[in-house]
Amino acid sequence: MQTFELHLQLAADTFPLGKVGSVHVLLHRTALVPWFILVPETRAIELHDLPPLQRAELNALAERLGRFLCQSMDCEKLNIAAIGNVVSQLHLHVMGRRREDALWPRVVWGNLPTNGALRTAEDAALLAARLRLAQCL
Amino acid sequence: MQTFELHLQLAADTFPLGKVGSVHVLLHRTALVPWFILVPETRAIELHDLPPLQRAELNALAERLGRFLCQSMDCEKLNIAAIGNVVSQLHLHVMGRRREDALWPRVVWGNLPTNGALRTAEDAALLAARLRLAQCL
Repeated sequence: MQTFELHLQLAADTFPLGKVGSVHVLLHRTALVPWFILVPETRAIELHDLPPLQRAELNALAERLGRFLCQSMDCEKLNIAAIGNVVSQLHLHVMGRRREDALWPRVVWGNLPTNGALRTAEDAALLAARLRLAQCL
Repeated sequence: MQTFELHLQLAADTFPLGKVGSVHVLLHRTALVPWFILVPETRAIELHDLPPLQRAELNALAERLGRFLCQSMDCEKLNIAAIGNVVSQLHLHVMGRRREDALWPRVVWGNLPTNGALRTAEDAALLAARLRLAQCL
């Protein structure tokens, strides 16, 4: 889709890790939890409005990243969600949670401290390399 | 699955609306937002551990209910999520949001007032009838 533009808020909050088919894979800058944000190139706002093939592509990618979080990043629980109350551009959160993370068992949305530790671009590049090795990207 | 038992917390928070294939459809008792909770009969904890056919069944049902919320219940945004930090039994939230609901744009998880208005069993029965008419159940 020629006119696709990532929402400014999503761009500001994340590092880009790569693109799989039509889906951009972003990493949230917070260091609190490992948190992927998947953004398919579409004008649809709700998951049910995605074309079936794109929906399947998004689901398969979310599944791969979820397995990676559990198997390679010691996450104990996944939080997977399409919310979009603030940023309506369709995006899917795939987040790994651990019982020792600072917000457990609360959800992260709306509870992220504004002055929390952040990842670096180098962290993101390293994670992207690990994801490519694991054939997630 | 003979040994399936709905988690006590999920049972306490909801009214049962019906069952589609292997998936129980529950309605959260809060009157604040229309909020379905889908519970597949499985011992899997994460979506990616569901057998593919059951995953497809769950996705298709979530999609039907999401369309119903948008088209028949005037919802402006869906919040769809698998979280399970508190109740690990696999369950998928399918919730309709409106800009005038009391929590907008915050997420509902963790923010529900403890003394908010509740639905009645009659409300739930009426909604179940509407869902059957709309071929969602």
